Amino acid sequence: MRRIKLVLQYDGTNYSGWQRQTNALTIQEELEKALELITNKKIETFGSSRTDAGVHALGQTVHFDDDGTFPVLKYVSALNSTLPDEIGVLSAVEVDPKFHARFDPVKKWYRYHIYCGKPKPIFKSRTSAHLLYPLDLDAMREAAQHLIGKHDFTSFKSLTEENKEQDGVRTLFDIEIKRGGEMVLVDIWGDGFLYKMVRGLVGTLVEVGRGKETSDWAKKALEAKDRRKAGKNMPAEGLFLMQVFYKKC
Amino acid sequence: MRRIKLVLQYDGTNYSGWQRQTNALTIQEELEKALELITNKKIETFGSSRTDAGVHALGQTVHFDDDGTFPVLKYVSALNSTLPDEIGVLSAVEVDPKFHARFDPVKKWYRYHIYCGKPKPIFKSRTSAHLLYPLDLDAMREAAQHLIGKHDFTSFKSLTEENKEQDGVRTLFDIEIKRGGEMVLVDIWGDGFLYKMVRGLVGTLVEVGRGKETSDWAKKALEAKDRRKAGKNMPAEGLFLMQVFYKKC
Repeated sequence: MRRIKLVLQYDGTNYSGWQRQTNALTIQEELEKALELITNKKIETFGSSRTDAGVHALGQTVHFDDDGTFPVLKYVSALNSTLPDEIGVLSAVEVDPKFHARFDPVKKWYRYHIYCGKPKPIFKSRTSAHLLYPLDLDAMREAAQHLIGKHDFTSFKSLTEENKEQDGVRTLFDIEIKRGGEMVLVDIWGDGFLYKMVRGLVGTLVEVGRGKETSDWAKKALEAKDRRKAGKNMPAEGLFLMQVFYKKC
Repeated sequence: MRRIKLVLQYDGTNYSGWQRQTNALTIQEELEKALELITNKKIETFGSSRTDAGVHALGQTVHFDDDGTFPVLKYVSALNSTLPDEIGVLSAVEVDPKFHARFDPVKKWYRYHIYCGKPKPIFKSRTSAHLLYPLDLDAMREAAQHLIGKHDFTSFKSLTEENKEQDGVRTLFDIEIKRGGEMVLVDIWGDGFLYKMVRGLVGTLVEVGRGKETSDWAKKALEAKDRRKAGKNMPAEGLFLMQVFYKKC
């Protein structure tokens, strides 16, 4: 038994997220199909993050076990020529058999893309949210200061049947907001994220940035521990899982 | 009767080209559907170029006639909120009733995008061709010199039932080839282009750029007036109609 760690990028537009599902096409299914095609074995994969439908990745991290016969150095090219155009493998390395893509991350980095302006961005429509109003980045940065740190982020957790009882305490290490042309980028680093938490955080910052709420309101929204008190979730297309950090490797 | 000129951009990936067809979704159909929705009238549109399936545009030019009741200044925003995300209107102006988008162009500019390198470009796969080998741009520029000017471009015309007898003489004003990171851009300006001509020209330059043929071979391919003597057509996804130039407006 040999454990392999992959770093994956994908355009998630046409996929129902990372995780295998019965009636929908997912990234995990495509990856496992490609692995079976090149190794002739059924291989189960474990992803660091269950990215949602339509969410993209530049650094999704995945591990799986193989029987050691397929050359590690060939995984990248073999998978890239087998996977659809929207999914690519950046690297494949052998790791300690105790390494776990999902349970071992110490930090994750997400980036949210917001295109503010006209005309509507035809070639960015799959990879950014489009707002017709301008954003005050300084106000957003002020609001972000209230969110950084160790908090109960229940106000930013979208409820599902499964996560009702899930503890909401997470640590946000940093939030950076910058502009490049018409594009506003919101970078968020944390030790972990609740279901749709990043999209709720950005939606809350946008309410402040557009002047509908003050930066103090973000603090109150956080402290309310009530999903209805914070901003709406931003759409999936603007969100990228950028990088997953592990203690070793 | 009032004549309106639109400049359109689109991501052509999911469309069967510009021109209306019976059994396939096209840009023209989407535009005419949107025009009918906002004006409550059936409106016929005329595009400058019949871009092929999968080809993109940053400057497709279109004209149509309306009855003068819809405010010209509102066409851009009304169409942009009605059209699908992949199609956008950049401008709408009233023009001389004799203006014709298809028959009046004096120059057209196409750009072809080639991504040379690894890993495969996930977020450029819809908008560029991907080559695994490097290209010698100086050799391509030398070959391009043989193609610039007024020539019979029959060697670069893909045959259809309709264009068999079509005259192949066209004038290429200029070809520029440049690199930005891993992306090679081929810009071509001409007074008009035959069916799939740009993709055949670029395919021929690529044969030279990858070292399979010398730059003189491009000259022989042109002079042969035989499609089989020139390079293969590059795929649709790398091609953009950038701008259409008219004498006036």
